[in-house]
Amino acid sequence: MINKSNLASNSAPALATERLEYDEAQRLTELEVEKLLKNAPPLIRRQTSHLARATGKGIRARALLTCAMGGDGLVSHGAVKAAAAIELLHLATLVHDDIIDDADLRRGIDTLHIKFGQKIAVLCGDYLFCLAFDLASSIPPQETDGDKPGGVLPSYFTEICLGEIGEFSNTGNLDLTEGEYFRIISGKTAALFQASFHAGFLLSDEPPEAGDLYIEIGKQVGMIFQLADDCLDFISSQKKAKKPVLTDCRHGVMTLPLIYALQADKTLRGKIKNGLAEQELKTAVLAAGGIEYTRSKIGEHWSTAKKLISVLEAENKKTQLELLLDKAAAL
Amino acid sequence: MINKSNLASNSAPALATERLEYDEAQRLTELEVEKLLKNAPPLIRRQTSHLARATGKGIRARALLTCAMGGDGLVSHGAVKAAAAIELLHLATLVHDDIIDDADLRRGIDTLHIKFGQKIAVLCGDYLFCLAFDLASSIPPQETDGDKPGGVLPSYFTEICLGEIGEFSNTGNLDLTEGEYFRIISGKTAALFQASFHAGFLLSDEPPEAGDLYIEIGKQVGMIFQLADDCLDFISSQKKAKKPVLTDCRHGVMTLPLIYALQADKTLRGKIKNGLAEQELKTAVLAAGGIEYTRSKIGEHWSTAKKLISVLEAENKKTQLELLLDKAAAL
Repeated sequence: MINKSNLASNSAPALATERLEYDEAQRLTELEVEKLLKNAPPLIRRQTSHLARATGKGIRARALLTCAMGGDGLVSHGAVKAAAAIELLHLATLVHDDIIDDADLRRGIDTLHIKFGQKIAVLCGDYLFCLAFDLASSIPPQETDGDKPGGVLPSYFTEICLGEIGEFSNTGNLDLTEGEYFRIISGKTAALFQASFHAGFLLSDEPPEAGDLYIEIGKQVGMIFQLADDCLDFISSQKKAKKPVLTDCRHGVMTLPLIYALQADKTLRGKIKNGLAEQELKTAVLAAGGIEYTRSKIGEHWSTAKKLISVLEAENKKTQLELLLDKAAAL
Repeated sequence: MINKSNLASNSAPALATERLEYDEAQRLTELEVEKLLKNAPPLIRRQTSHLARATGKGIRARALLTCAMGGDGLVSHGAVKAAAAIELLHLATLVHDDIIDDADLRRGIDTLHIKFGQKIAVLCGDYLFCLAFDLASSIPPQETDGDKPGGVLPSYFTEICLGEIGEFSNTGNLDLTEGEYFRIISGKTAALFQASFHAGFLLSDEPPEAGDLYIEIGKQVGMIFQLADDCLDFISSQKKAKKPVLTDCRHGVMTLPLIYALQADKTLRGKIKNGLAEQELKTAVLAAGGIEYTRSKIGEHWSTAKKLISVLEAENKKTQLELLLDKAAAL
């Protein structure tokens, strides 16, 4: 067996039963991810340390920790593990995604396969998947009533993979409908947020009947996050996005602004088929109202999520979840 | 969430508490793997159905089920799930391995990336990893005392990944020592067998103190299996091995017959560096006694494993584990 001293389970045994303030839990989650990446076994440490240079904003972890808050406003150490597992799973999918998309920049730094080669990037992604599994499985069952996050997360893992496959299978499919698009992002991005909200709920002291509400809020936030990301690919600058922009269309990834523009501007399909420069496509999508339409969809999901959050009985989480919602929708 | 009706948990709820004869459990494991592959979600079904055409001999599943046998000679439904999880995990690593090694044939059929492309093969491997994890997590904790296989397997998952990385990192490394080689195969192949024996033990009614013995037998059987595989790459025919032979040396994978030959024949290193045809390398390795030496190592591990098996108190498992041992060592 590997030396498990890197896993959170062994990091602070004396404190394992103490509950944590949200800010402290969030800091510990970041530290945990950083530690697992920087102190990985020597064989893979160069690659994981490279990833540790830019670990993202941790919005999925924050969502999980917020949902995991108890009536006392505190969260358990198990929630820190679950949050770190979610971030590692997300990172694993990004590493493999970047191979699939031939992306060369992520979070402002070279992608793993560009820096170290494609083969080791496949294996490093596998390692991160397995590390996420390992961490999710290490959450003590006594921290949850009944269903364990360690038991809940895995079924989302397969769903997230299927979302990636759905996106890949529809690369360059100009006939993709809006309905099909929503089904794909529901798997690809929304499922990861659903998993975060669901696991957080299970680690909280909320009554079982609140579970569906959390899952639905997670889904809405995930949809918003993806729709905003789709817009940013068209309207952001590379400096601001910390990754190349206009990559979705370059790689044939179908996004809602483009799908709408293809509906609104019947000449666009022919132009794309005849070859269209990226900036010309951007201009066409903007002119056809693709961004406005996507923004209106973000607004719809935002309203739904806002209503759902208002139904929650846990008053202390409402403000924080609303902030998270606004952050997801920010353009 | 995905439709989970494909998972074993829902396949025969009425029978879930009944215990199974070994042969029945083995048949159900094969059916379970086949069902999960053939009835996968449509997005990935073509790929997983292709894999279902040749699912291997299931030696790891058999090992797990044998170890899981209780004093009554029966095994639980949880053991079937764990055995199917081990086979799916193994399959996931094979799919990604074949990408890394540019292999074009596996178990007598085209490899996945040759038939469907590299990108979808990466995603399909990810899906199988997640499916294995999902299945492992679905084993009811009441079927085991204390540690769950669902909690035990994931830590082996990371170890197996590291083994793959270790092998890849040493591709073409003619300076690899025998000690380093054994450390690599200890991660790569032996860890998967250790996981099978360990999970089987946890699902059995053996006393806790027998755990280390099972893990050690698993490690020995895994070593033997890998050493035999290394030999077969040199001495088998493609028809018999159902995969191309001499692929290890073609891809620069360092195996014990070659490592020994490099020690015994000091002219070999120079010849390889100057370029040596595969058949010439085979002749040189055989002439230097690389196969005999590897066979002698198989013999040593076989004797160790045999002794360890004889110490087991569960009389009804001994014969079956000895058969498994002989099968692993068969050349």
